[in-house]
Amino acid sequence: MLTQESPKTQTINWKPIIKKFVAVLGEKGVVQRKEELLTYECDGLTSYKQCPPVAVLPRTTEQVSEIVKICNQFSVPFIARGSGTGLSGGALPAENSVLIVTSLMRQILKIDLENQRAVVQPGVINSWVTQAVSGAGFYFAPDPSSQIICSIGGNIAENSGGVHCLKYGVTTNHVLGLKIVLPSGAIVDIGGQIPETPGYDLTGVFVGSEGTLGIATEITLKILKTAESICVLLADFTSVDAAAATVSDIISAGIIPGGMEMMDNISINAVEDVVATNCYPRDAAAILLVEIDGLEVEVSANKQRVKEICQKNGARNVTSASDPETRLKLWKGRKAAFAAAGHISPDYYVQDGVIPRTQLPYVLQEIERLSNQYGYPIANVFHAGDGNLHPLILFDNSIHGELEKVEELGGEILRLCVRVGGSISGEHGIGADKKCYMPDMFSEADLETMQWVRKVFNPQGLANPGKIFPTPRTCGEAAKVSIQKFPDLERF
Amino acid sequence: MLTQESPKTQTINWKPIIKKFVAVLGEKGVVQRKEELLTYECDGLTSYKQCPPVAVLPRTTEQVSEIVKICNQFSVPFIARGSGTGLSGGALPAENSVLIVTSLMRQILKIDLENQRAVVQPGVINSWVTQAVSGAGFYFAPDPSSQIICSIGGNIAENSGGVHCLKYGVTTNHVLGLKIVLPSGAIVDIGGQIPETPGYDLTGVFVGSEGTLGIATEITLKILKTAESICVLLADFTSVDAAAATVSDIISAGIIPGGMEMMDNISINAVEDVVATNCYPRDAAAILLVEIDGLEVEVSANKQRVKEICQKNGARNVTSASDPETRLKLWKGRKAAFAAAGHISPDYYVQDGVIPRTQLPYVLQEIERLSNQYGYPIANVFHAGDGNLHPLILFDNSIHGELEKVEELGGEILRLCVRVGGSISGEHGIGADKKCYMPDMFSEADLETMQWVRKVFNPQGLANPGKIFPTPRTCGEAAKVSIQKFPDLERF
Repeated sequence: MLTQESPKTQTINWKPIIKKFVAVLGEKGVVQRKEELLTYECDGLTSYKQCPPVAVLPRTTEQVSEIVKICNQFSVPFIARGSGTGLSGGALPAENSVLIVTSLMRQILKIDLENQRAVVQPGVINSWVTQAVSGAGFYFAPDPSSQIICSIGGNIAENSGGVHCLKYGVTTNHVLGLKIVLPSGAIVDIGGQIPETPGYDLTGVFVGSEGTLGIATEITLKILKTAESICVLLADFTSVDAAAATVSDIISAGIIPGGMEMMDNISINAVEDVVATNCYPRDAAAILLVEIDGLEVEVSANKQRVKEICQKNGARNVTSASDPETRLKLWKGRKAAFAAAGHISPDYYVQDGVIPRTQLPYVLQEIERLSNQYGYPIANVFHAGDGNLHPLILFDNSIHGELEKVEELGGEILRLCVRVGGSISGEHGIGADKKCYMPDMFSEADLETMQWVRKVFNPQGLANPGKIFPTPRTCGEAAKVSIQKFPDLERF
Repeated sequence: MLTQESPKTQTINWKPIIKKFVAVLGEKGVVQRKEELLTYECDGLTSYKQCPPVAVLPRTTEQVSEIVKICNQFSVPFIARGSGTGLSGGALPAENSVLIVTSLMRQILKIDLENQRAVVQPGVINSWVTQAVSGAGFYFAPDPSSQIICSIGGNIAENSGGVHCLKYGVTTNHVLGLKIVLPSGAIVDIGGQIPETPGYDLTGVFVGSEGTLGIATEITLKILKTAESICVLLADFTSVDAAAATVSDIISAGIIPGGMEMMDNISINAVEDVVATNCYPRDAAAILLVEIDGLEVEVSANKQRVKEICQKNGARNVTSASDPETRLKLWKGRKAAFAAAGHISPDYYVQDGVIPRTQLPYVLQEIERLSNQYGYPIANVFHAGDGNLHPLILFDNSIHGELEKVEELGGEILRLCVRVGGSISGEHGIGADKKCYMPDMFSEADLETMQWVRKVFNPQGLANPGKIFPTPRTCGEAAKVSIQKFPDLERF
């Protein structure tokens, strides 16, 4: 298997580098004070931390290009960061690396309603895109839970998903073209203003590449027409199996809901304890939230069909809401589920795996078995329609040695996902956190093929080193991400 | 700009190479007789011809891998070919190259209805996939006009489209994973059995790479549930502008038809002359065919809305059909349009460009102006909903010098598409035919970035040389495709 060499920590003289950064961005565009830099020591994966020696705040494509060229000149790695909400440590700084923060690149550059697209800078917040076009009856479909804070650039890096990606696809399905700064500093345009441009689909390979192939500085997004009608159904079940079977049956009936989410008993009670929706029955083994959108006639017909499928599978109650307020109320608990887990347990560890939908009952049983075996409660709250699991392992990190055991349990769950034909990541990316599981999913030749692509875009390995690809280290050591050089690939 | 060096034709001693091919495939798997090889001298782009010195017919992934390894050993290029229906010369042999024909790789390996996927070999015919699953109420969405003869492998190579790609997306949206033989002969798996696997999206970059990155030997396809109800509307207009405006208005209303096709007066009359549908009014300036699918209630509501939009834009008549027979009759003329053009003119040259939908009226006017300027009638029959034009330039190839003028006219149309923010290819690929237009659409840096990817997968340049990327030659000389070595890219 291809591995990355263990780095030797170098002593870098930052003075001339920072002087050049200041010449491009001014004093205010270069963050050097330790207390300010601490903001950037981790992303949403807070268990891994590394304070960067310097962070820069460019405003334009040209400035990003200049910064990257300076990094090349001095052979220092650079890591792009949006809002820092990622959950796999994709924006985790490396030792002796420059953090390129896009939070001043927040302009919506163009909105073209007729052709249903918007051009934005990478620091634009996900929900701003919808806000900018909703008045005219449009929206941007990918909606990660963090959408009121996460950036479009970060969404591109991690190929983010969300509740509505079941019907409308994840981020990559909503990106038409990109202006990118390559790891060399060159500026290129990939994709275009229309879907399916000729030549290689570099937009496809760039989206989800977690900053290892360059930095997107202008992003052309698809925007969609808002549905005429939306309805949310809440169905409660006395068994997890029945809820899982319902998910399969709904899709098998040819209905693709806008979203279809499942919460188990632990999640339901956590949510009711913390945000008191008073909608979710505390004694249910599982609930399903099914959102249906489309024409009014279509929603009304599908609502009836979904209701019947739920009842056929033994749902105790099926309620529905079409008015925005009640819909919001039904969703409120789901949206607060992660936060609620943080209230009922000192710590939680969220996993992100995908399985074929038909394996839901088996995999949920196996997770319960693992939960008992390891002795940690696991709350399940997830995108059931996509088979995208989010088990939350509840534990107390202040007890020495617990984190390691929990990470081991998390690893078991991921391997279970792979075993049934699924994947080690649904929407959170691989980042620093999961690279050690890549060999569970991909063969040496598969990983080597990906490494070629990385190598060709990023020959010096300066763009986001130590992410995605496994190193010889064991899992849990990812916090020690550092400057890594590419190995000499056999074919080069 | 990056260019490929002019090749020097080498004299290759085929005897030891063929001996090795026979050892892998047996005598019957290796085609050497000139009269049999003539079958393979061109694909659907019949103006370019080159007879290959040898063709091989593998049956398994391992055999493809062995053949490719032998090609590497002797440094001879190889070109994969499915059914040979491609329209851009993607499967055009190069001088001294081996043609790897997939027509014995025709097994449907697995059908998994529950998870809505099928695994097929590359030689499987497009329509066979739907045939294999239609009894259970499923279908494979991408439907090129050639679907009863074109192969899935060819669809992958060219990222083929079709009438139903407006709503459901082109081939790349329906491929989950691939087993591929790399240009080195190594076998790797990319993508997977579920959408959105982690790591780089190599499936995305492979689909549409026209055989330059390797050969797909096992393809995991998504299959979709057949809609409950389907309805086709035929609307006729006294002006092309009104028909074009209707297309925009339908999409703006948030309706995504299954397909939306336009035919102009020349096409209508050609079709009625040849296949006599007796459905298309000969005096119409343009007709629209709009297919709506979904739940019965949804189809019924959308049918009404589409009808109203057509009438608002001055449609003279709007008829509709829901029963399979009449629907087929309405589609019959559209499907026969290319063939009909071949009946009313000694020759035709089909172009394939894409424009933003809102530019339809302007671009169609410009095409008419160019038609008058050059003095060739142009029939327009195309995927209007996608803005994917197919102007058919009618001419007589037996008149010396006509082809060159027609190609010049075709080039003008493509440049027009690029000028309004569109693309030089919608669904036919670049192949040998259009590589000279790539610089009209992409900058040097953009093309260089694509070349890197090619280089990294295909370092010796043996996989389908002379395709996609521009050479220093002028357009129209593509027939002289030959062995080409990669230039030394600056960064290597």
